[in-house]
Amino acid sequence: MIGIALMGAGRIARVHAGAIPAAGARLVTVFDIAQSAATALASEVGASAALTAEEAFDHPDVAAVLVATSSDTHVDYVIQAVDAGKAVMCEKPLAPTFLEAKQCVDRLGNRARQVFLAFNRRFDPGHAAVKKAIDSGEIGELEQLTITSRDPYPPPLEYIPKSGGLFRDMMIHDFDMARWMLGEEPVSVFSRGSCLVDPKIGALGDVDTACVSLVTPSGKQAVILNSRRTAYGFDQRIEAFGSAGMVISDNPRASGLKRFSGTSFGAPDRFRAFFMERYGESYRLEIEAFVGGLATGAPPPTNALDGLRAVYLAEAAGASLRLGKAIELQANCEVTWDA
Amino acid sequence: MIGIALMGAGRIARVHAGAIPAAGARLVTVFDIAQSAATALASEVGASAALTAEEAFDHPDVAAVLVATSSDTHVDYVIQAVDAGKAVMCEKPLAPTFLEAKQCVDRLGNRARQVFLAFNRRFDPGHAAVKKAIDSGEIGELEQLTITSRDPYPPPLEYIPKSGGLFRDMMIHDFDMARWMLGEEPVSVFSRGSCLVDPKIGALGDVDTACVSLVTPSGKQAVILNSRRTAYGFDQRIEAFGSAGMVISDNPRASGLKRFSGTSFGAPDRFRAFFMERYGESYRLEIEAFVGGLATGAPPPTNALDGLRAVYLAEAAGASLRLGKAIELQANCEVTWDA
Amino acid sequence: MIGIALMGAGRIARVHAGAIPAAGARLVTVFDIAQSAATALASEVGASAALTAEEAFDHPDVAAVLVATSSDTHVDYVIQAVDAGKAVMCEKPLAPTFLEAKQCVDRLGNRARQVFLAFNRRFDPGHAAVKKAIDSGEIGELEQLTITSRDPYPPPLEYIPKSGGLFRDMMIHDFDMARWMLGEEPVSVFSRGSCLVDPKIGALGDVDTACVSLVTPSGKQAVILNSRRTAYGFDQRIEAFGSAGMVISDNPRASGLKRFSGTSFGAPDRFRAFFMERYGESYRLEIEAFVGGLATGAPPPTNALDGLRAVYLAEAAGASLRLGKAIELQANCEVTWDA
Amino acid sequence: MIGIALMGAGRIARVHAGAIPAAGARLVTVFDIAQSAATALASEVGASAALTAEEAFDHPDVAAVLVATSSDTHVDYVIQAVDAGKAVMCEKPLAPTFLEAKQCVDRLGNRARQVFLAFNRRFDPGHAAVKKAIDSGEIGELEQLTITSRDPYPPPLEYIPKSGGLFRDMMIHDFDMARWMLGEEPVSVFSRGSCLVDPKIGALGDVDTACVSLVTPSGKQAVILNSRRTAYGFDQRIEAFGSAGMVISDNPRASGLKRFSGTSFGAPDRFRAFFMERYGESYRLEIEAFVGGLATGAPPPTNALDGLRAVYLAEAAGASLRLGKAIELQANCEVTWDA
Repeated sequence: MIGIALMGAGRIARVHAGAIPAAGARLVTVFDIAQSAATALASEVGASAALTAEEAFDHPDVAAVLVATSSDTHVDYVIQAVDAGKAVMCEKPLAPTFLEAKQCVDRLGNRARQVFLAFNRRFDPGHAAVKKAIDSGEIGELEQLTITSRDPYPPPLEYIPKSGGLFRDMMIHDFDMARWMLGEEPVSVFSRGSCLVDPKIGALGDVDTACVSLVTPSGKQAVILNSRRTAYGFDQRIEAFGSAGMVISDNPRASGLKRFSGTSFGAPDRFRAFFMERYGESYRLEIEAFVGGLATGAPPPTNALDGLRAVYLAEAAGASLRLGKAIELQANCEVTWDA
Repeated sequence: MIGIALMGAGRIARVHAGAIPAAGARLVTVFDIAQSAATALASEVGASAALTAEEAFDHPDVAAVLVATSSDTHVDYVIQAVDAGKAVMCEKPLAPTFLEAKQCVDRLGNRARQVFLAFNRRFDPGHAAVKKAIDSGEIGELEQLTITSRDPYPPPLEYIPKSGGLFRDMMIHDFDMARWMLGEEPVSVFSRGSCLVDPKIGALGDVDTACVSLVTPSGKQAVILNSRRTAYGFDQRIEAFGSAGMVISDNPRASGLKRFSGTSFGAPDRFRAFFMERYGESYRLEIEAFVGGLATGAPPPTNALDGLRAVYLAEAAGASLRLGKAIELQANCEVTWDA
Repeated sequence: MIGIALMGAGRIARVHAGAIPAAGARLVTVFDIAQSAATALASEVGASAALTAEEAFDHPDVAAVLVATSSDTHVDYVIQAVDAGKAVMCEKPLAPTFLEAKQCVDRLGNRARQVFLAFNRRFDPGHAAVKKAIDSGEIGELEQLTITSRDPYPPPLEYIPKSGGLFRDMMIHDFDMARWMLGEEPVSVFSRGSCLVDPKIGALGDVDTACVSLVTPSGKQAVILNSRRTAYGFDQRIEAFGSAGMVISDNPRASGLKRFSGTSFGAPDRFRAFFMERYGESYRLEIEAFVGGLATGAPPPTNALDGLRAVYLAEAAGASLRLGKAIELQANCEVTWDA
Repeated sequence: MIGIALMGAGRIARVHAGAIPAAGARLVTVFDIAQSAATALASEVGASAALTAEEAFDHPDVAAVLVATSSDTHVDYVIQAVDAGKAVMCEKPLAPTFLEAKQCVDRLGNRARQVFLAFNRRFDPGHAAVKKAIDSGEIGELEQLTITSRDPYPPPLEYIPKSGGLFRDMMIHDFDMARWMLGEEPVSVFSRGSCLVDPKIGALGDVDTACVSLVTPSGKQAVILNSRRTAYGFDQRIEAFGSAGMVISDNPRASGLKRFSGTSFGAPDRFRAFFMERYGESYRLEIEAFVGGLATGAPPPTNALDGLRAVYLAEAAGASLRLGKAIELQANCEVTWDA
């Protein structure tokens, strides 16, 4: 049974910790800079708590490392773990900025393709079914892709600056979805961004409502709609329109309940709640894919280069908004805009 | 252009009056025992008002008669019109009681099959699509049929006694739907009936909530659910379950609107309102079928014998409830129960 | 941590085995008359395999016993476990026949209310939401209840005789749902039953397609529709119609996918598959309720008396079909019909 | 009863001809440059056929003129009819080009607000319900608007050049919808356009697949998605996302039918067919609004200035695509881009 070291003991680390045994692997040790958090989680799951990152990497039972710490530490742990010869899965984003992500990928060289970059939404059953319908030819050639991704409420204000802002923190998922679905690298990005939810977000230099337009060399068009707040919960939809049909990954429901009254005429049940409930199954399937890949030696379905490209798109989208013009994207992820 | 005499100037007569020109026929004359009602309707639609029923039947431009008067006068007008050599369409029910319907059919003899009995729901696009799915083999052999038919609110209390009660007045539509869908005559009926909506309805000897179970010689099962009141409008659904699939004619909507809020998560628009809106299209298509049949000489899709069988089922259902037992139904509509 | 002995190592026992740790309990030992099955399951989950039932009951770490063996052994194990002073959860049915269930309940006396009878559907999120809408008054007074319960395909033919037939094996769940939703004991049952799916089922004296009608003292009506086969998977719906509204627990979906093509116009994703996927969450929540109750001392939400009443309804429904008449039900579960 | 002259006897003119009597007005005379078409339509509806446009305008019974001829003749007839003192309703677009529309509006002066510009989609029940939800505050402040508008199949190739291309011919409706919903004039437009459906459309200098992004002074964002072809019929949706909720006008259905089989799990009925069926009710309600306004003297809900602004947006969108950059829009409809 493959032994895993978990870097981080925060919310998302706990999600992964719960999924590891079900995937047929063993959580051997947990490290967190907040040692008490590591100890608490470790004791709950019957693992040891590592006092240092090195201790975790060097544990003899550890064959794989799962990095789920704060974003600014991802690069260091990934490189250390890879250098230690471990298989690595890294939470998104690879790095908070394009520059750091680029340095990481350059440092990793060929090994960048071996790092499993955890874009969990690729494992969501609905989104994955859209991808499958594209790849199978069910909808013919993809022509227009619409990704709607709205959070129920904004993060704490103090999180905004360190997150890198909406494009790098929130839309990063959607950029990965867009690249994955389109099957081609976009060649141009154009952004709209407004501060409509909370002026304090604007005061921090960020936007909370955004609309980004992409196009690929073959003319496929994609639109991403983001908002930091809805009145109706977590809104996560993908619409893929093609020459032979269309598929939509719509918001799944808490149950099959429908209500009828003087004001409801078959109103369906609520959406699944924020990402822990909504994407719970994707986290589980993601760990299964990681563990399964360790067994078969198959390359990760999404790697550090995907992480690099997503943050490249995010920074280009930010530049488009700042500069008020479309940004041409380069195949080699060259930054051509003025910061 | 075929000329039509309209017997009656009440609510349902007005619905038919509006549909006649669109169907390519001409409303020549209107009769109602309330002469002022006939005059008012006639002047609105550019027809004459007949002073007597005979005057309407004898009008030289009248080729067809549409009987939409109160139920207790249907039989007389139908027989008179048939005797006068006119094509006849008669609103449901053929007669308020089985005995009167039987006498009418006996009197008509072979001509009973020429009288178009207006079970409008056969022309509803959703219900008709269910029938088509059964007849085409799309769902294989029909095995279970569930008809849900609930009015938004009860009729005026004074209407209850003269209507003949829930089974003969309201469920009559559903008995016709059941016979039409099943494609076989039921051989047994069992009823549940309760007074849950308004005790005054119970005081008049009627029920307001009923559930009837039917079975055919080949073992097909049907259930009819009726209520005189819902909190959510007019509820009209048919579910046909077969060996190779299922089709449901669900309640259509006022529009494609969907609402999302803190309590609504894609709540669809309201149902179409009571029968005038909900079944408006069926009334229009029914007149088209009647007028079209006059032109081609095709026999009516539903005739006086269907009207007889529906009221036979209604009275047997009433007997089942009174006697607390299943009632065996006879192929020749013989009444075997004690009144 | 509460220790549990699991009686049985078959399919449903394995479902429970997987849910026990997540519920915060520990699976201590497994017994099955097929000793190799017990050994295999035990080794997978890190439990011991008991060589005899007594060994399982007497294990010092065992505080609770979960009976998931074949139906004909339930009564013996339940009584043994209760006599051994253990908390007990028993898979449905309590016993294959009413007589055996009655003897079990009589033998248990007051302790019958302490036996958790595992009607898992009570824990399904959709069905439980219907119950909540009834209890909270959201739909006013319940008036008509429609339970549709159709399996994707029939069980192996050899299973039919030992299962006790459709009413006792399959509809038993629906009788429990009906009792639970209605909040009153039905006073009459009337059944239709046909053999439409497979004549071999009929040759074994059973039906494969059934429709049962119930009524309560206050006039609430319930209908249960069963089929042993559909073309479209597992069909599990409950519709509760009340004076102030209606709720429907509709079939949940594998995902939020919708398809559009020349023949699909927003076709939703498939239903969840047969009971392991469809009711997976209910099994998990059921174990949580059992384990939670052990901690708090709360009485089981569904007990051996519920098990008795469900099989009483099942046998009365069978009698109704055989005798072709409605069967009056007794408050004390007296059998008044001729076998 | 108000008398109407109908200019044009083509397809859309016939739709209007059918709606006039139901709206309580009278179709007096019909003119078309193809005189036989005018004569045919006139005889069907009991109107006269005018030999010249002047004859139609000068008819003593004509109080209002409905212009439904080819687009390049709209301006002349509108001006003639207004000069003749008639009330005027003009089919969209006001003119094929911005320049012609501008000249028309300049020529009309204050009377431009009296010309009813027939953007029929404003009268669609679903779209109108979205507008109502915005205006009533139901969804709070509108923040993101998504308009999806896809035709089932492209027009004949010969129609492309004279139509003015996708932006001026097809997206013109969506620009009007966007302005109406947003309640503010957009200040910037950015376009993507591809030729993915038929290279012959590209050879004519047009695109067949487009995505346009708009923003208003207050930061409201709008996206319009167009395609000239779908595999699944006419796709017409509007999604309005606001601070307090969201409403979607989804594609309405031919009926409430749902299908279940081995591959369908509640698949809803087909969308309503191309614009004649899909928007049939909007055409009827539009004529009612026009006729109703004649009676009350209320100003038209959409007038020639709306027609001008829609074509301004269309040409700016075309310029954005040609120039590869966002186009700033002027409050006075000034053209600031190079052609």
